[in-house]
Amino acid sequence: MNYKMMGRFMGRILLVEAAFMLPALLIGAYCKEDDAVKGFILGIGVTVLLAVGLLQLCRGAGKGFHAKEGLVCVGLSWIFMSLLGSLPFYFSGEIPRFIDALFETVSGFTTTGASILPEVESLSKSILYWRSFTHWVGGMGVLVFLLAVASTADSKQGFTMHLLRAESPGPNVGKLVLKMKTTARILYMLYIVLTLLDVVFLLLGGMSPFESVCTALGTAGTGGFGVRNDSIASYSPYLQNVCTVFMFLFGVNFTCYYLLILKKFYNVFKDEELRLYFGMVLGSIALIVWNLKGYYSTLGETVRHAAFQVVSVVTTTGFATTDFDLWPNFSKTILLCLMVVGACAGSTGGGFKCIRILLVMKNLRRNVQKVLHPQKVQVVRINGQPVAEKILDNTNAYLAAYTFIFLFSFILISIDNFSVTTNFSAVMACFNNIGPGLEAVGPTCNFGAYSIFSKIVLIVDMLAGRLEIFPILILFSRSAWKHR
Amino acid sequence: MNYKMMGRFMGRILLVEAAFMLPALLIGAYCKEDDAVKGFILGIGVTVLLAVGLLQLCRGAGKGFHAKEGLVCVGLSWIFMSLLGSLPFYFSGEIPRFIDALFETVSGFTTTGASILPEVESLSKSILYWRSFTHWVGGMGVLVFLLAVASTADSKQGFTMHLLRAESPGPNVGKLVLKMKTTARILYMLYIVLTLLDVVFLLLGGMSPFESVCTALGTAGTGGFGVRNDSIASYSPYLQNVCTVFMFLFGVNFTCYYLLILKKFYNVFKDEELRLYFGMVLGSIALIVWNLKGYYSTLGETVRHAAFQVVSVVTTTGFATTDFDLWPNFSKTILLCLMVVGACAGSTGGGFKCIRILLVMKNLRRNVQKVLHPQKVQVVRINGQPVAEKILDNTNAYLAAYTFIFLFSFILISIDNFSVTTNFSAVMACFNNIGPGLEAVGPTCNFGAYSIFSKIVLIVDMLAGRLEIFPILILFSRSAWKHR
Repeated sequence: MNYKMMGRFMGRILLVEAAFMLPALLIGAYCKEDDAVKGFILGIGVTVLLAVGLLQLCRGAGKGFHAKEGLVCVGLSWIFMSLLGSLPFYFSGEIPRFIDALFETVSGFTTTGASILPEVESLSKSILYWRSFTHWVGGMGVLVFLLAVASTADSKQGFTMHLLRAESPGPNVGKLVLKMKTTARILYMLYIVLTLLDVVFLLLGGMSPFESVCTALGTAGTGGFGVRNDSIASYSPYLQNVCTVFMFLFGVNFTCYYLLILKKFYNVFKDEELRLYFGMVLGSIALIVWNLKGYYSTLGETVRHAAFQVVSVVTTTGFATTDFDLWPNFSKTILLCLMVVGACAGSTGGGFKCIRILLVMKNLRRNVQKVLHPQKVQVVRINGQPVAEKILDNTNAYLAAYTFIFLFSFILISIDNFSVTTNFSAVMACFNNIGPGLEAVGPTCNFGAYSIFSKIVLIVDMLAGRLEIFPILILFSRSAWKHR
Repeated sequence: MNYKMMGRFMGRILLVEAAFMLPALLIGAYCKEDDAVKGFILGIGVTVLLAVGLLQLCRGAGKGFHAKEGLVCVGLSWIFMSLLGSLPFYFSGEIPRFIDALFETVSGFTTTGASILPEVESLSKSILYWRSFTHWVGGMGVLVFLLAVASTADSKQGFTMHLLRAESPGPNVGKLVLKMKTTARILYMLYIVLTLLDVVFLLLGGMSPFESVCTALGTAGTGGFGVRNDSIASYSPYLQNVCTVFMFLFGVNFTCYYLLILKKFYNVFKDEELRLYFGMVLGSIALIVWNLKGYYSTLGETVRHAAFQVVSVVTTTGFATTDFDLWPNFSKTILLCLMVVGACAGSTGGGFKCIRILLVMKNLRRNVQKVLHPQKVQVVRINGQPVAEKILDNTNAYLAAYTFIFLFSFILISIDNFSVTTNFSAVMACFNNIGPGLEAVGPTCNFGAYSIFSKIVLIVDMLAGRLEIFPILILFSRSAWKHR
């Protein structure tokens, strides 16, 4: 293990995080929120101290940086980022218990949006802003950000590739251009432009500037933290529809936007993952509208609520305009299944990802075809291109890991004796980075009642879900830590 | 497709089934149960007619019989067997609706044990016997039986192998000896001996001969149909413990018993699947006993109930001595997870099977190791033997198929608007061939309230679960039916 390089990298990540806290500090100072200001100053202080210490300790790099180091580095970075990111919540006294502050921060960075707070309107503005901002930076990834802005000293191809691959969602990273640094920059540019567009559309609907920014940050990261207790329910239909559209857009693979800029419309039109995503969303909305007949006063209202909740769940955002826990069970079941599926790879959304569904389905189809035509050689193709067997094998291993971690967490948190549906949907909501579940963790409730032990389990689930399991799984593997 | 050979084979299967109905007919005649006798006579008549028709129609065999034909043949046989096996229930008037009779029969043959009957004690004895007997023959498989007794005219190696492989549970068939016919005979001999032993132990505990036979048939097939409304609850602790032990024994891979006869004790002792099965059962019992502290009056009673329910669920039998739906949620969650795991391959139990858990886990471990040591060639081994990549790939495809069918069924039956837990556990209980689920389909309830549509979905699930998905999946594949 190249500890020096890892340490130096993590030091820089923490410096970036400290810098990210500065705007929140300024907001706090502007609004005269003394406790929050104290929280941010302490948070920034500790973070900078630790970062400088790490950078000093790890001067003079060892050689060699492999996939293993990339995974471990990403896993550890996210854990440290979360620990330090929770300090403002804790030191400001607005979330008095550290485990709750940590849960909230992890939920933020992983773009889950599950909260332990029974209500958020009494929080100070700077804290609310920081809460929403964790979504934004967590959505695209703080390592990707660092790559985009870093000097090229450490940015050798292998190094950056391993990191980008470990942090980006999806089975194979969408390498837009040859150079990783440029890819990271393009991704962040697209991300910033789309977020700004969202802010503009929200402002046009009469939302206050502060709420517009926070809502857009939460939408962009497909996170789900809102600034009102009833999430998006009390906003106008226009504002709700803006959220629906932008949640949907942030669930699309960013490669598609890059292709649109390059005017490769045909490639986008023919993209199999995008088609599955589109079809699934439209189909689910239609089924739920049919199932909700008579539930709302007009068809328009039904479509609006159905579309909002479907998009919110499939992109794993977790905003709500209505309490879907009260919907009939068919609609609830569709939403539960959409939670598993998730959005497209290379988006800010979580879940199992549409592309993996495609890969697993096509591999299954191939297995059936093999029985029918044993002589024929079968190749799995996506968008006409053959998929490497290694990626298929990896996707299968991912499904296996997903299933085991899911069941294991489900058992562990059931010790708290909440209902089966509550526990099941809690794991679902955290592991897939959605936010609200059903029953005691439904859209109008929160995760505060779980024990410290269960919260730790769910924190690990959120991290494993956001980082796509392996960077976290590998931290538990003894041979990852062995010196050779 | 070799339709002639398939038709002739199915004709013979139906003749065997008609023969199996004879003892039930005799019991009915002896007990003077007129309606039941009428039902069996009509049932046997229709079955024999159809069988003779098929045999006449398909004289003179075409050549060639491949894996594809084996799968289709097994899938169709089970569907026809179920349709005809339900006739006595229907014609006797004891289950007035045909869909319910079919559900009960499929539940019997697939050794599920899910019932649509609110109570069973008013059924006539011959019907109760037939209900339990479907478990017994379904457990080991009626095709395996036919292979064991058939003349060797059709029994070319390829033909029998494809059939045995398609009907036997587990990723690769345990070919005990070189000749399939002998393997089938050994399996049925072991099965009969163990069943008789069970009957003897039940008789020693003072159970009536009729109830002993029916209970033993239900235990041997790991089915779960009982002859009393409260399943096994009203029997003495001794009788309950006998059931626990024998359910456990029928969940073991029968190859292990054959190895014991050959005195290869060391191989049995070292068998990884057996060790996982043992460990899982003991661990689950311990955890549930801990969780149930204070729930029953004595520790002995707690252990008895915990052991019974754990073994009943993991072997997918579905007998009950207590209503585990009232247990705390941790215990319920453990039982839910055990439902997925299931028993050993090559046993009469259902579920995902311990060996597949091992294979999927080891493949996952290999994928993690590949990241850590990219240069090293890694081979998955079971009991020291390398596992073919083809089997690993197939197991992964099985997990994928399992997950999709599960979610799809879950959505379909949720149209009936039962609770999420009810629907989830109903699919779990049917697809894994267990029997009772939770809440509205819990141990003290039944499946009668579901709509016809949901019952058909659950029937398909039961068949897919028993035949390990592919023989049923392939029936839906267009290219299986294409003439070339």
